[in-house]
Amino acid sequence: MMLESLRKEVLEANLEVVRRGLVLYTFGNASGISRAEGLVAIKPSGVPYDALRPEHLVITDLDGRVVEGNLKPSSDLATHLVLYRAFPAIGGVVHTHSRYATAWAQAGREIPCLGTTHADYFHGSVPVTDALHPQEIETDYEWNTGQVILRRFAGTDPMARPGVLVTGHAPFCWGRTPAEAAHNAVVLEEIACLAYHALTINPSALTISDALRDKHFLRKHGPTASYGQK
Amino acid sequence: MMLESLRKEVLEANLEVVRRGLVLYTFGNASGISRAEGLVAIKPSGVPYDALRPEHLVITDLDGRVVEGNLKPSSDLATHLVLYRAFPAIGGVVHTHSRYATAWAQAGREIPCLGTTHADYFHGSVPVTDALHPQEIETDYEWNTGQVILRRFAGTDPMARPGVLVTGHAPFCWGRTPAEAAHNAVVLEEIACLAYHALTINPSALTISDALRDKHFLRKHGPTASYGQK
Amino acid sequence: MMLESLRKEVLEANLEVVRRGLVLYTFGNASGISRAEGLVAIKPSGVPYDALRPEHLVITDLDGRVVEGNLKPSSDLATHLVLYRAFPAIGGVVHTHSRYATAWAQAGREIPCLGTTHADYFHGSVPVTDALHPQEIETDYEWNTGQVILRRFAGTDPMARPGVLVTGHAPFCWGRTPAEAAHNAVVLEEIACLAYHALTINPSALTISDALRDKHFLRKHGPTASYGQK
Amino acid sequence: MMLESLRKEVLEANLEVVRRGLVLYTFGNASGISRAEGLVAIKPSGVPYDALRPEHLVITDLDGRVVEGNLKPSSDLATHLVLYRAFPAIGGVVHTHSRYATAWAQAGREIPCLGTTHADYFHGSVPVTDALHPQEIETDYEWNTGQVILRRFAGTDPMARPGVLVTGHAPFCWGRTPAEAAHNAVVLEEIACLAYHALTINPSALTISDALRDKHFLRKHGPTASYGQK
Repeated sequence: MMLESLRKEVLEANLEVVRRGLVLYTFGNASGISRAEGLVAIKPSGVPYDALRPEHLVITDLDGRVVEGNLKPSSDLATHLVLYRAFPAIGGVVHTHSRYATAWAQAGREIPCLGTTHADYFHGSVPVTDALHPQEIETDYEWNTGQVILRRFAGTDPMARPGVLVTGHAPFCWGRTPAEAAHNAVVLEEIACLAYHALTINPSALTISDALRDKHFLRKHGPTASYGQK
Repeated sequence: MMLESLRKEVLEANLEVVRRGLVLYTFGNASGISRAEGLVAIKPSGVPYDALRPEHLVITDLDGRVVEGNLKPSSDLATHLVLYRAFPAIGGVVHTHSRYATAWAQAGREIPCLGTTHADYFHGSVPVTDALHPQEIETDYEWNTGQVILRRFAGTDPMARPGVLVTGHAPFCWGRTPAEAAHNAVVLEEIACLAYHALTINPSALTISDALRDKHFLRKHGPTASYGQK
Repeated sequence: MMLESLRKEVLEANLEVVRRGLVLYTFGNASGISRAEGLVAIKPSGVPYDALRPEHLVITDLDGRVVEGNLKPSSDLATHLVLYRAFPAIGGVVHTHSRYATAWAQAGREIPCLGTTHADYFHGSVPVTDALHPQEIETDYEWNTGQVILRRFAGTDPMARPGVLVTGHAPFCWGRTPAEAAHNAVVLEEIACLAYHALTINPSALTISDALRDKHFLRKHGPTASYGQK
Repeated sequence: MMLESLRKEVLEANLEVVRRGLVLYTFGNASGISRAEGLVAIKPSGVPYDALRPEHLVITDLDGRVVEGNLKPSSDLATHLVLYRAFPAIGGVVHTHSRYATAWAQAGREIPCLGTTHADYFHGSVPVTDALHPQEIETDYEWNTGQVILRRFAGTDPMARPGVLVTGHAPFCWGRTPAEAAHNAVVLEEIACLAYHALTINPSALTISDALRDKHFLRKHGPTASYGQK
């Protein structure tokens, strides 16, 4: 069996978002990439999580051809592949329909940076994509979902905002590893929840200052990070 | 004991909606039908779920006559029967007072199709019935609850929208099997929750495009379905 | 030990509201009455629930004199006693600070009868008391809390609406037994939650018709009740 | 190992806020002080809670110098130290990003005293700090977070309102012991939740009367306290 260690990491990322309550039934999928081999491991489509074993994961190349596995890959595979091809720093992608993040995606609204919990992970608002055009939906829908994400991130660093809301759909998150992508998906749901409640309390709540946003983001990320036992 | 396998399926559907948190005390009921025999198995009225065994289910014919069982059937039996008689494709019916779906029913508002989670299951908005007239309430209330549902679905395919909100009351869902009806009840609650939060964030949130709605519904349903391991 | 069976019922009612998530720390209390002996069993003040045993309950007479027990009774004892003296049909009282019901009490708003879940238990809106006058707060506060409830129920049947919101405070519920009082407290929390969400979706949501309200209330209560296995 | 008993109390306070659902991942920290020795025990930075043992806690002096421990202290240490230096009556400090309290902090709004649950713990509204100036963020950020709290409490008794919302950030709570600080953090989250829902129901909900506020606060605090088994 190929990529045994990656399979385990990807399985664990899939299970983590389930344990954290982000997934109803099979509404989500996590993947990971081996950059050395140019191969991706992804959850199979529609398989219940409690039956999922490392050997059920599907291995594909970056064109989506199945290299190992008897099951069909997640229907969102093409979106994951677009992200891996465009964002060389990422090692994992996680897609969920988690409640608050999906509500923001359905509302078609960016999540403004209202607090330090947000700034610890996202350097600025959580972006929302444009809607896909009908022709982008009819042909190569999942691939075009990736493209609409790329358009939204053009000229920006995907590691500074490790997730996106696909409008009318749901979030995609990423990270250096599958575990980090799952962690970011969990935090995005929390950020989305906090902003939902903050704006209900005060619809004209202000975003935090650039200084505070930078302080928190850089305390956790980049060369000057000081959080944790590093 | 008649219909042993159907009894088990119906018991399991009743327990599934409890496990998923859709039911407080005994506020819900699931049933299933054997089309071959024209018989329905339904939860007895007011019996605690943890004491429920297959032999407690009540078997009735399509006129509501008890064919087997010592307990009284659920008080909503007549509503289930109306649905089985009018919708030949369905094999199970589930009624709950789940929180978000019931809130929409109490609000008297259709749930607009704001996202793909919705479109994966409902091809368009989740319909709301008209209110019953006082005379429909005073006589044959539960039967008339079924009739008001039928009026709302006149000329439409019930499998394209496998559930309804009875205004001022709560949802009824259905499916090809009791398990699918329970699954749809769980998903309806999720859809209702997502729409609640999306519209709080953005009261003028738009429904998704017809192209996106069709893409998602048809990816999961009908002859061109490609989701899961089919 | 006196009233052993009543003590067990009251303990169980106290634990039920904890298990159902209505109680944070020790913010709640349940009591029961032996009408034959004119004695009340009530939770002691500020004792953690997981250490609570039948022998810890405090037995008092209807003037609040401790008849058996080494612990201080709940600080809300006097409110319970007022209710027992004024409402001869009740056998149990439960007070909690459950989240949605308390939010309505803090909002100072009656919970309108927006759906059948509500009408199954409350025949009309859930009432809110007036605020207490400063002098009613300074002297005999808990007794006066009972009085302000009685004023709100003057000329009405307390069994038709088995609970109340004390404005700026929280709900009190009652029933024929401690178990029924606890059950009503749990249902009131659910009703409060449903109405909260329904009115957020549609601030001008209508109350259900008198015919529907009566149908549901009388299906569960009174001489014509038909719900459950009765 | 120094301060073994304090270490256990602080560990327990850290675990309590996790058990109560106030903490996602490592987003929180509790500390305690030995006034006799002028030493503080605090959670190490970014260590998972389920691996936390008394010996992992970090002991520092009131200038933040590590006296015992191999791990880095929580990044919020300096904020805790400012509070210990300025508020001689406190023995524990707890910081979380709990959902409702953080939403209020992000909204930049004080939590008005709308009910008795609130008045049992906070004698008046829950205060919000001013925003920090950019220069306060760039240099000695965590120390200045403490200073902005002190400015908000100037001339008032910190024991009468045992917590604060740092605007755009999250709550800090305190108490006579680490356990009491954790308890206050849990109650603040509940208060924040109740006020959120009460104001959604009725945006012009009134604060309770001074008489009711005083009655409840003084029933639990100060020389005339009568709640519990004291």
